[in-house]
Amino acid sequence: MNDPGHPATLQTREAPAAPAVRDLAGLLEALHASAAQRDLAGGHAAQEKQWIADAGLLTLAVPREFGGEGASWPDIYEIIRKIAQVDSALAHLLGFTFLQEVSIHVWGNVEQRERYLRGTVKERWWWGNAVNPLDTRLVATATGDGGYLLNGQKGFCSGTRGSQMMTVSAQDPLSGNAVFAAVPTTREGITVNEDWNPIGQRQTDSGSVSFTQVRVEPGEVLQRADTPYASLRTLVSQQVMTNLFVGIAQGALDEARAYVTQYGKPWLNSGVAKATDDPYLIQRFGEMRIQAVSAEALAVRAAQALDAAWREGPALSAQARAHVALVTSEAKIVAHRAALDVSEKLFDACGARATHGPLALDRFWRNARVHTLHDPVDYRVRDVGRYALSGTLPEVSLYT
Amino acid sequence: MNDPGHPATLQTREAPAAPAVRDLAGLLEALHASAAQRDLAGGHAAQEKQWIADAGLLTLAVPREFGGEGASWPDIYEIIRKIAQVDSALAHLLGFTFLQEVSIHVWGNVEQRERYLRGTVKERWWWGNAVNPLDTRLVATATGDGGYLLNGQKGFCSGTRGSQMMTVSAQDPLSGNAVFAAVPTTREGITVNEDWNPIGQRQTDSGSVSFTQVRVEPGEVLQRADTPYASLRTLVSQQVMTNLFVGIAQGALDEARAYVTQYGKPWLNSGVAKATDDPYLIQRFGEMRIQAVSAEALAVRAAQALDAAWREGPALSAQARAHVALVTSEAKIVAHRAALDVSEKLFDACGARATHGPLALDRFWRNARVHTLHDPVDYRVRDVGRYALSGTLPEVSLYT
Amino acid sequence: MNDPGHPATLQTREAPAAPAVRDLAGLLEALHASAAQRDLAGGHAAQEKQWIADAGLLTLAVPREFGGEGASWPDIYEIIRKIAQVDSALAHLLGFTFLQEVSIHVWGNVEQRERYLRGTVKERWWWGNAVNPLDTRLVATATGDGGYLLNGQKGFCSGTRGSQMMTVSAQDPLSGNAVFAAVPTTREGITVNEDWNPIGQRQTDSGSVSFTQVRVEPGEVLQRADTPYASLRTLVSQQVMTNLFVGIAQGALDEARAYVTQYGKPWLNSGVAKATDDPYLIQRFGEMRIQAVSAEALAVRAAQALDAAWREGPALSAQARAHVALVTSEAKIVAHRAALDVSEKLFDACGARATHGPLALDRFWRNARVHTLHDPVDYRVRDVGRYALSGTLPEVSLYT
Amino acid sequence: MNDPGHPATLQTREAPAAPAVRDLAGLLEALHASAAQRDLAGGHAAQEKQWIADAGLLTLAVPREFGGEGASWPDIYEIIRKIAQVDSALAHLLGFTFLQEVSIHVWGNVEQRERYLRGTVKERWWWGNAVNPLDTRLVATATGDGGYLLNGQKGFCSGTRGSQMMTVSAQDPLSGNAVFAAVPTTREGITVNEDWNPIGQRQTDSGSVSFTQVRVEPGEVLQRADTPYASLRTLVSQQVMTNLFVGIAQGALDEARAYVTQYGKPWLNSGVAKATDDPYLIQRFGEMRIQAVSAEALAVRAAQALDAAWREGPALSAQARAHVALVTSEAKIVAHRAALDVSEKLFDACGARATHGPLALDRFWRNARVHTLHDPVDYRVRDVGRYALSGTLPEVSLYT
Repeated sequence: MNDPGHPATLQTREAPAAPAVRDLAGLLEALHASAAQRDLAGGHAAQEKQWIADAGLLTLAVPREFGGEGASWPDIYEIIRKIAQVDSALAHLLGFTFLQEVSIHVWGNVEQRERYLRGTVKERWWWGNAVNPLDTRLVATATGDGGYLLNGQKGFCSGTRGSQMMTVSAQDPLSGNAVFAAVPTTREGITVNEDWNPIGQRQTDSGSVSFTQVRVEPGEVLQRADTPYASLRTLVSQQVMTNLFVGIAQGALDEARAYVTQYGKPWLNSGVAKATDDPYLIQRFGEMRIQAVSAEALAVRAAQALDAAWREGPALSAQARAHVALVTSEAKIVAHRAALDVSEKLFDACGARATHGPLALDRFWRNARVHTLHDPVDYRVRDVGRYALSGTLPEVSLYT
Repeated sequence: MNDPGHPATLQTREAPAAPAVRDLAGLLEALHASAAQRDLAGGHAAQEKQWIADAGLLTLAVPREFGGEGASWPDIYEIIRKIAQVDSALAHLLGFTFLQEVSIHVWGNVEQRERYLRGTVKERWWWGNAVNPLDTRLVATATGDGGYLLNGQKGFCSGTRGSQMMTVSAQDPLSGNAVFAAVPTTREGITVNEDWNPIGQRQTDSGSVSFTQVRVEPGEVLQRADTPYASLRTLVSQQVMTNLFVGIAQGALDEARAYVTQYGKPWLNSGVAKATDDPYLIQRFGEMRIQAVSAEALAVRAAQALDAAWREGPALSAQARAHVALVTSEAKIVAHRAALDVSEKLFDACGARATHGPLALDRFWRNARVHTLHDPVDYRVRDVGRYALSGTLPEVSLYT
Repeated sequence: MNDPGHPATLQTREAPAAPAVRDLAGLLEALHASAAQRDLAGGHAAQEKQWIADAGLLTLAVPREFGGEGASWPDIYEIIRKIAQVDSALAHLLGFTFLQEVSIHVWGNVEQRERYLRGTVKERWWWGNAVNPLDTRLVATATGDGGYLLNGQKGFCSGTRGSQMMTVSAQDPLSGNAVFAAVPTTREGITVNEDWNPIGQRQTDSGSVSFTQVRVEPGEVLQRADTPYASLRTLVSQQVMTNLFVGIAQGALDEARAYVTQYGKPWLNSGVAKATDDPYLIQRFGEMRIQAVSAEALAVRAAQALDAAWREGPALSAQARAHVALVTSEAKIVAHRAALDVSEKLFDACGARATHGPLALDRFWRNARVHTLHDPVDYRVRDVGRYALSGTLPEVSLYT
Repeated sequence: MNDPGHPATLQTREAPAAPAVRDLAGLLEALHASAAQRDLAGGHAAQEKQWIADAGLLTLAVPREFGGEGASWPDIYEIIRKIAQVDSALAHLLGFTFLQEVSIHVWGNVEQRERYLRGTVKERWWWGNAVNPLDTRLVATATGDGGYLLNGQKGFCSGTRGSQMMTVSAQDPLSGNAVFAAVPTTREGITVNEDWNPIGQRQTDSGSVSFTQVRVEPGEVLQRADTPYASLRTLVSQQVMTNLFVGIAQGALDEARAYVTQYGKPWLNSGVAKATDDPYLIQRFGEMRIQAVSAEALAVRAAQALDAAWREGPALSAQARAHVALVTSEAKIVAHRAALDVSEKLFDACGARATHGPLALDRFWRNARVHTLHDPVDYRVRDVGRYALSGTLPEVSLYT
């Protein structure tokens, strides 16, 4: 590294001592100020989750009839993008709390919706999950009264650490069926393991959870439905990811702009007096923005499609649901690429000094990289390609 | 070329003898059926322009107060995309007729709007133009009564051949000003030269026009305004291009799908029984569609922004206009790339036999290539980059 | 098209009346001067083929023991690239004459090598072919004396029109075997059909050939061998393609440089005085060159590998042959992409006026597009991927 | 993260207790085994540097007349690539030791070459540097006897920590000239600061060095020459970077292959039984390899050009040197992109589980990202573009 003039004293930003986080702008500023430190430290973000709860965001997706905001999907995902711009791990936690609320909404009965959704509003619950359907190590033994005892383990239980409530799925070997339920995370026998240590998305708390003789009451058992409407749940989840990716791209672009504005120097042979006049730097920002706005435009289009389908309710047709799946996949592919590309190009824009470790500017790429592997983009392109070539709409699956 | 089994008898599609073109679907089918032949033949598409006029499309952009459709910009551009899917040269002619109608709307006085816009409705005028502002060879000599005599030449006069009306700009050497006017194309002294012979967009009639002692009446002189509202005209033009590009991408994708469905054979080592099951072919269609839908989404977003600004009318602020310019540039860049890429990939999808000359499947790429050079995409990226880096909105210019 | 100042009088280059084509430089200049006209006219290039023969190029690949040049494969492919820079169709014809010489070399017996290779030197034969192995319409009936009668048809017979000699393959339904032979193109019963009309590579004469009771003498029958050494023939063919692609990329770059140097004007908002100082134009030329030199470097590397294998002779191992197949595929993939990209970017570099039809500057892209579809690049990437992932070397096939 | 079945017990590889590192293969294996741990720990790699010295690699670039290996540049860079495949930071240290040896060779007098180059062979010196020419904080005060006193600081002093010798440059304010010298790193007054903490290339020890009244003896002062031959030194440095990039790309590909072979599972909807049969995974490996071999081919081509120029010695012409600069830039650009792309795609190939923190598989991307910012690739493309457009060869500069 011969890059001249690296400021050895280049400082990371200090978090304000007492952030004003009651409003969204204040929350975003506070989360941004401490994002690099949080990434470097790893671990659980209890304080920041409290800030998000305090800002009243946990109930955006709870219908108004239960006291929630009942926000539209485009509005919900806009909030997720904004948080993801400053911290995509915390945005993930929020998005997955919404996802569990949706699970209650589509799989719960009247009484459960009342109890859990109104409870979320009243108690400001964060929701975790242990529902990874391909991890079949968690066994449910029927207790004869409609309830179950759970024993075993689940991996990738995003958001469970530090949550108050969680959804859980387990295999009942007798019936051969999967059992779904909502339980308090503090239920006796549940141990949330602190074993989440990835290269990015370091505060999603996606570690494992162990269950030892965990009691599920009959009234806690949810009825998984596979109607087109209920299966919008998967698309809610996929659009959470999509908007995290968009937010990462936007956040990386914001960070690059701020860095160049503050620290940028023209390259020695550039012939320009200011970095912001460098023709190639301008072009890089142009390309970064084009990727970010493309991703955002497709994400908004997908959110609008989801919203329209959601408002149709249980009458939603399979074909209409499949069309939402298609536009969701299209948006996710474009967002996937934007997140990776913009977060990599951030460095071309900022230059060598931006690789200083404490700045942790690589967190955008690492966050994007971890999250974009959730399911392979190639198979999502295949779904779009099958439609484009043969008119075949995506099937309902664990990821589409 | 060792590709086996090229059907020497592969036929181009025959145009139906008597196309039912009164409705849009019929029009599109008729234009599609003869598109390859038109491209190969070059020259002027008098018959097809008549079909478009007969389908009632010329007045989409004329406000209802003058008897037109007063369609929204998103609706207008959707029509342009649909026509561009089958023939982007004819879509260009239609779009530029709309552009001249807008010129009358923003530069004409009350009497001129009444005369020319109502005239367009009543007489089904196609509009041409001779307004290329950088070609300064056309001279206007004031006649003292508020009128002018025009002498000289203009190049790139798209749509003038075969038009009934045209707009014209000329330099007045005495005042140093540009003179704008609307005149009948048949006005004495106007010669439309048949010198348009490009590699693509072969029916846009963008040749040169000669003027010899051409009389412009005082009432034909338009007053060019440079208000933010009036300068939306440039963005109307840029969005015409944008939607032509989107249409080319969509049309190339449609053509590829149709070709593979009809003629596609699995590659010899592919291990699949049908071309439509080929994993790599599916992926190519996925990528083509992703590019096409990205371009469309941004084009729709830009059209909505234009529509909102347009409806603000003369009160439109410079900043609001600049934001429309920005989203227009973003959409145009993405559409530019989609048009080129999809029209090239069409052949990877279809294979060697698709290069048979009479099919003219390369017309999508040639059309895209000609039209995407109207102004350099690099400078459009620069505009977006300046905004992304420094917050500088695009200035009003001949192209933005 | 509003691009100002299109020179309506922009002329295509005139071919010199009496080209000095005895040397390579003179040949290249003459071929370049008339390339656009040849592309636009289509048809057969009898005169130009004579120039190539007069320049003494037909025997480059004939071993010295038969009076040929016995040039190394790197030298042979360098010549092919140079010709392809100015006319990739004629370069194809020359490359395929070399390929038939190789066919004689590896499939012929001592007497046949002597007769056909020495004959090529003495008589300056152009070689065509009718060996497309997947077109099984040509039937060979054994005449009992070791000879055959041929009846039927073959497609994609590149170079046969205007050739003096040709190789041919046909199916013998009795034995179930393929029969290979070398015959004079003028042999009674052979009709070369003038049915080649593609969008590019318009002078490769790759039309069909009909055979009616065509006599093949016993001494004309070749013995197809499938040894690793003999199957280098396929790689000779693949490297002909590869170097055509490289030449197209280089030629497009040369053409762009010449055009911008002669006609380039700075864009109106560029802030530079000369086109050659435009930062974005410079960047485009940089990118075009990087693609062209990458393709060339890999092509040279592949030619060196082929040359080393070729010099091993019949003792060549299957694994050594497979390694040549691998580097050939790697080179072909990179060259494929370079040819398409550079020939498309040529226009971004040159601007709108370069789309003037008579210039036929789109011939580079059309030539690249036709030729790069010979076999699907996706399956070539698959071969490289299988090696990279599992260490599996490419199998001998019709294309690898 | 819902990816099923993440092995919570997935282990990083353990370094062998007593590595057999006397030969290159043993060295590479040992460095590979501990690479992830080294990356995670940061800091200085004293033990591993000893292994490299013990393997006899420090004198590869020392001419045979001084007892060194006098290896050719292609051979030297092949070694650098191999080490970079397993640890690009250590490969950087080795490459920069070579670079200081070259500095002595081209700037030293006969006596200095004898002393320092032979000393390197005899004592197995690692060389550091404090020569960053744009960091002008280090001041040289002439002591009147031809020597100097150094006071001040230099940044980005790669390899100085743990070195035995170092080159240094400082400003003499009286003469206005730069002073170059070679001094022992242990010279009194030199403090090597442990302040190197980047996101990648974490063992290059590129921190700052402080100088307090550091004595430079007259015989330690080097005479910087700017002849074409001497300025090959810059290209030696640039090719070190280039081959680090190539090595990173190759190493990432190796790692991906090893990971998929060991842990790869087919995706749930893939329809294949083994990950290695997945068509899209195969394609990704194909693309990764194509990038890696392209980068390698250009790097070898550049090394051969450097070698030829180097062997011309002091008679080397400016133009011949500039041609080496051109091919060096071409190779560096391609290698830059290959390193970033392949190290990112590694994860698409390996899937979600590969993001497990202790595996540190993101180190390839982080290493590539840090190192590719040494100087902006855009300006390197500009150099290539200027040559391609105007024939202007790169000027001698700090980076070209």
